[in-house]
Amino acid sequence: MSSSLNVPIIGYHRSPLSQKFGIPRQPNLVAVPSVIQMVNPFNTAAAFVGLEDFSHLWISWQTHHNKAQANFRPQVRPPRLGGNSKVGVFATRSTYRPSQLGLSVVKLIGVEATSHGVIVHISGADMVDGTPIIDIKPYVAYSDALPNAVSGFAPDKPNSKPVIMSSSARQQFARLISQDRDKNSLSKTKSLTPLYPEDIDIISRLIAQDPRPAYRQSEIDSIFVMRYKYLDISFKMNAEGCLEVIKLCEIV
Amino acid sequence: MSSSLNVPIIGYHRSPLSQKFGIPRQPNLVAVPSVIQMVNPFNTAAAFVGLEDFSHLWISWQTHHNKAQANFRPQVRPPRLGGNSKVGVFATRSTYRPSQLGLSVVKLIGVEATSHGVIVHISGADMVDGTPIIDIKPYVAYSDALPNAVSGFAPDKPNSKPVIMSSSARQQFARLISQDRDKNSLSKTKSLTPLYPEDIDIISRLIAQDPRPAYRQSEIDSIFVMRYKYLDISFKMNAEGCLEVIKLCEIV
Repeated sequence: MSSSLNVPIIGYHRSPLSQKFGIPRQPNLVAVPSVIQMVNPFNTAAAFVGLEDFSHLWISWQTHHNKAQANFRPQVRPPRLGGNSKVGVFATRSTYRPSQLGLSVVKLIGVEATSHGVIVHISGADMVDGTPIIDIKPYVAYSDALPNAVSGFAPDKPNSKPVIMSSSARQQFARLISQDRDKNSLSKTKSLTPLYPEDIDIISRLIAQDPRPAYRQSEIDSIFVMRYKYLDISFKMNAEGCLEVIKLCEIV
Repeated sequence: MSSSLNVPIIGYHRSPLSQKFGIPRQPNLVAVPSVIQMVNPFNTAAAFVGLEDFSHLWISWQTHHNKAQANFRPQVRPPRLGGNSKVGVFATRSTYRPSQLGLSVVKLIGVEATSHGVIVHISGADMVDGTPIIDIKPYVAYSDALPNAVSGFAPDKPNSKPVIMSSSARQQFARLISQDRDKNSLSKTKSLTPLYPEDIDIISRLIAQDPRPAYRQSEIDSIFVMRYKYLDISFKMNAEGCLEVIKLCEIV
């Protein structure tokens, strides 16, 4: 018997989050809309007949930002334990794992058959833009939903932190949203690129998860930058313990 | 970017069910105890530190009884739809899928470090004996448990059917259990091979799922055979609509 398995990539994730920094640490923490673009030969509407009768999906995906491991490392330091304590890799969902496989439950928004192929609209993914997709399966509540399961060091949702926005950041958002609306007034379908009013709320919720690495979360006034669509968004923890959005820079 | 991913096999499933016939159609329908035997280099207790703080696990596994697909087949006939209606493969958990990956939530019984390596004791698997294991991840209730998710053509657990046992089958069970107890009276750990009193209940529950193919479920008096441990267990649907265990044969 072979000691490995070759698995085809069936599509790619397209998301406003093009860098790992800012990606929620588990699925469904923030309802960020994104899509899966299927690739041939999986790029056929026939393969999705019946999917829209399900509200949620399991996505298996490749943690492609982590190289395949030349040598097995049996332990990792999960962020939930402050990044200091080591636990077994199979006791975590760390992306540093032998399979390079991530697993996320996401909300299904809809399946769209376009002239270029099939696009699966989802929300709540914890996958970066460009993530290779390995499988899509329906969420079956009677089998998958175990609300009383005991969940070790991750018993509850991570706390979210208060987020405030500087007035200059607010003004920048308003200006860009208005610009994008004018540009796209003739476009019938929303693409992921332009900035919409709802993005302000999504960005706030992403930052409220505190994307800063665990070992730097006590730092006051250090600037961190989260990329979202075409923006680099600077924020810091202020002296009052709020995460403060300071400014936006357009990526050129 | 590569259009496929190579995934190592980290272990193998060892179960009293050595044939596909009888395997529950989803995980957690029947609490069959089984184990995962890890293989090198993943066969180290360090990789499991912390796992026992979780009550349930996600297992990714290879549907190795289905050959890799030379050509993508976009539709399948799920048993839940009577085996006649076709739906998209990504709208099902069919084992005939491009990734050859199965996904099961199972109950964690415990992690045992033996002189031969690590054995993960589980219950409720829908995987046959010999199934290659690809990944083990903890079940995180706050993220994974969505009891209100809408589940299309699989909204509820499949109904189980009444099971009765012929008196000769009962006598055979009693004799074999007593034989095995005598043989193993000096053994400290339970292996999967001998027959224990609790196996009668497990076998009844497996047959109550009605393992017969959907298109044959109206047949009266046709004999079907489920293999469990070293037994071939014959049963039929009788005229009263009960699944009746008729006899046991020891596999030689």
